[in-house]
Amino acid sequence: MPKIATTSSYSITMRLHTEPDHSVIGSVATAIAAEGGIVMAVDVAESANDRLVIDVTCSAIDADHAAQLREKVDAVDGVTVHKVSDRTFLLHIGGKIEVTSKVPLRNRDDLSMAYTPGVGRVSKALADNPGDVSRLTVKGNSVAVVTDGSAVLGLGNIGPGAALPVMEGKAALFKRFAGIDAWPICLASQDTDEIVRAVEMIAPGFGGINLEDIAAPRCFEIEARLRESLDIPVFHDDQHGTAIVVLAALTNALRVVGKKLEDLRIVVSGAGAAGTAIVTLLLAAGVTDVVVWDREGCLSGDDESLPAAKLKLAKVTNPRKVRGDLHTGVTGADVFIGVSAPNVLDAEWIKDMNEKAIVFALANPDPEVEPGDAGEYAAVVASGRSDYPNQINNVLAFPGVFRGLLDARATDVTIEMMLRAADAIAHVVKDEELNPTFIIPSVFNSEVPKAVARAIAGKHATLGDD
Amino acid sequence: MPKIATTSSYSITMRLHTEPDHSVIGSVATAIAAEGGIVMAVDVAESANDRLVIDVTCSAIDADHAAQLREKVDAVDGVTVHKVSDRTFLLHIGGKIEVTSKVPLRNRDDLSMAYTPGVGRVSKALADNPGDVSRLTVKGNSVAVVTDGSAVLGLGNIGPGAALPVMEGKAALFKRFAGIDAWPICLASQDTDEIVRAVEMIAPGFGGINLEDIAAPRCFEIEARLRESLDIPVFHDDQHGTAIVVLAALTNALRVVGKKLEDLRIVVSGAGAAGTAIVTLLLAAGVTDVVVWDREGCLSGDDESLPAAKLKLAKVTNPRKVRGDLHTGVTGADVFIGVSAPNVLDAEWIKDMNEKAIVFALANPDPEVEPGDAGEYAAVVASGRSDYPNQINNVLAFPGVFRGLLDARATDVTIEMMLRAADAIAHVVKDEELNPTFIIPSVFNSEVPKAVARAIAGKHATLGDD
Repeated sequence: MPKIATTSSYSITMRLHTEPDHSVIGSVATAIAAEGGIVMAVDVAESANDRLVIDVTCSAIDADHAAQLREKVDAVDGVTVHKVSDRTFLLHIGGKIEVTSKVPLRNRDDLSMAYTPGVGRVSKALADNPGDVSRLTVKGNSVAVVTDGSAVLGLGNIGPGAALPVMEGKAALFKRFAGIDAWPICLASQDTDEIVRAVEMIAPGFGGINLEDIAAPRCFEIEARLRESLDIPVFHDDQHGTAIVVLAALTNALRVVGKKLEDLRIVVSGAGAAGTAIVTLLLAAGVTDVVVWDREGCLSGDDESLPAAKLKLAKVTNPRKVRGDLHTGVTGADVFIGVSAPNVLDAEWIKDMNEKAIVFALANPDPEVEPGDAGEYAAVVASGRSDYPNQINNVLAFPGVFRGLLDARATDVTIEMMLRAADAIAHVVKDEELNPTFIIPSVFNSEVPKAVARAIAGKHATLGDD
Repeated sequence: MPKIATTSSYSITMRLHTEPDHSVIGSVATAIAAEGGIVMAVDVAESANDRLVIDVTCSAIDADHAAQLREKVDAVDGVTVHKVSDRTFLLHIGGKIEVTSKVPLRNRDDLSMAYTPGVGRVSKALADNPGDVSRLTVKGNSVAVVTDGSAVLGLGNIGPGAALPVMEGKAALFKRFAGIDAWPICLASQDTDEIVRAVEMIAPGFGGINLEDIAAPRCFEIEARLRESLDIPVFHDDQHGTAIVVLAALTNALRVVGKKLEDLRIVVSGAGAAGTAIVTLLLAAGVTDVVVWDREGCLSGDDESLPAAKLKLAKVTNPRKVRGDLHTGVTGADVFIGVSAPNVLDAEWIKDMNEKAIVFALANPDPEVEPGDAGEYAAVVASGRSDYPNQINNVLAFPGVFRGLLDARATDVTIEMMLRAADAIAHVVKDEELNPTFIIPSVFNSEVPKAVARAIAGKHATLGDD
């Protein structure tokens, strides 16, 4: 049986034709289980004298595994696999989101209020009082999920069309977790100037901009320029959403191991979008000793050969001027945070870290170190995977962040807001719940987005400032 | 009692505090009716020993009339008006549309199919097979309603924010009448190049572009360039939607008066977006004698002093080289179609038109000639108003047009499709229903969008061609 867990992201439904003997179902289930699949549902679709038609839904690891399962089921005596459907693809047919009317449109009177001529009075009022647009339109509750398709999940530069299912999924999550009306905007250009201008152009209809899956270092300039030019908040989720959840998880890991932020030595592996934002937020939170490692080795501010973005990062980190490989970097460190590439951290190296080491291996889908292996030596381990404890998942942050921004009619999102949001997520986990395998609340804990929204929108002096 | 009809686009709800005497309601209703208001609903919100709280909803003509109604009700013995709410504005609070998930997001398994990691497989498949984007995302059913806010209803250049309620209303109608997911895109620029580029940039996520309320002549170039560069259909509703419904109405008006298109003399008042598109469609339908009138008088192709767009129009019309004012233009004409300005046509001039004259006075909210006055002399009269028979309303066209385009995965919208759509709308009205006050079906006739969609998507050789 395979070591890797099956996932319903790869679940299939097999339509079987069998002899009219219900015991066949047991044989099919046994065959699937023996091959490492998990049976999720069995439905008898048709029962006749001479045959049964049965739909068996089961999860698999990947396409090859699904093919193996089909083969094994087909080999069961008296069973023919008639058709295999992929549930994830079935779910995507026709798209995952829709636009619906919140107002009735039953008759002419309804039309005359929601559309012409009544809507003309509302537009006239907004022309006279532009400040009311958020109150009287969807702008007050809407977010554009903007991508150029250049850094989508672990797939890389797949372009705007192929990125659309991800942006749609994000929009669906915005509604599910925070009641926000988000719409995917997939841009047909990867030119920084064009992206900036396109977002500026569409901004009047949205209350916030969620940048998504835009490659570094382009994403830094795009975000900075849009924050400067727009009067609505701009938030690159891959950067700041990740940073907020990492800081929340770290806060709770420290509660577990009894260490303090300001005393830590932290190594961040990966100087991309997420790594850069994590470092910035850690420093703002009071961390003083962060070393960033990337393909050039440990980044040091006196290494003028570094690319611009990395040099900038190096100059505000690495106070001890550590140079060398990742093993050197993590030796003596309290915390490893990986947002880089698969298997760059040897689990054995964790023995050379400070005692009660904390390891966050967040590369997706394959982490910097296998979480199970890391757990042999580290006190607390987190990853981006849902099949291990302590999943670092942006869904914990972005819905509540935008809920708070929209509620407050914020014009900007500040580092202070992000610090408060991280703290809010951390403290949803109560002292009595906290343990090395539970430092992060479930994404289905409805208290999370509420707490984050309150923290973001809190009546603090910094709201709307930069 | 005012001559102009009240409209629910201006309906108000008054909260009254009255003595505990139900007969007071009668007195209130009488007072409202005496002042020309129409009582639509009466709800007793609270009944106690010492008082009643009553919500009275009534329609008014405009803000002044609403204030008069309030005053008269307040003057009724034993009644105090506590508060007045404007129902149209109430309906707009928080916006009229929302984005909802079509897929369940109850648990981790759901998330892992709709979002990561499962969505990654779908994105990967789309990167490999871009042709499947429409099938596996919302693109296949979505339309961008794009405006620059430069020519909104009769309000003119009110800008993108103030235009948003209109675009939202349009999006709501798209869903209501054709099941289409439309999203408003209000652009922060009125520069042709910038508008074209912004629409090109956002196009990957949409199956069609509905341009809306963009001023002429800019709208012509924007549409032409986008049709050239995009692989999805682009349709400027103010032009082609209007043209389709006008041709449908004219088709049926001719059935009523027994004339033929090719024998007609037609005068079109207004050489803007709508007028230009109407002329183009009429010529394609077989009309040979159209004269366009605008502020320069009757446009003639030998008048080189005309602005470029008007000269272009003049060169394909006015075969008899008519010059002069509108009275000259309409003398001897069979049809007047006004898409211009209030009160430019003197009703008396209709006497000088050919017998069985047809008058479409479509300027909004105040038509070229009062429809009641025109009816004294014309055989058939239509207007843009809902308080007269024969309302020419774009809602009859655009939902079905885009339904058909999306269903057919059309890459362009052709003049042949528009001719078929007009014919389809016309023939929803059966011979036995047809009469001078019923040449156009109701917008609530569910057969209309279906017939239009079939006509657009029809397996014709021209589909997708230009």
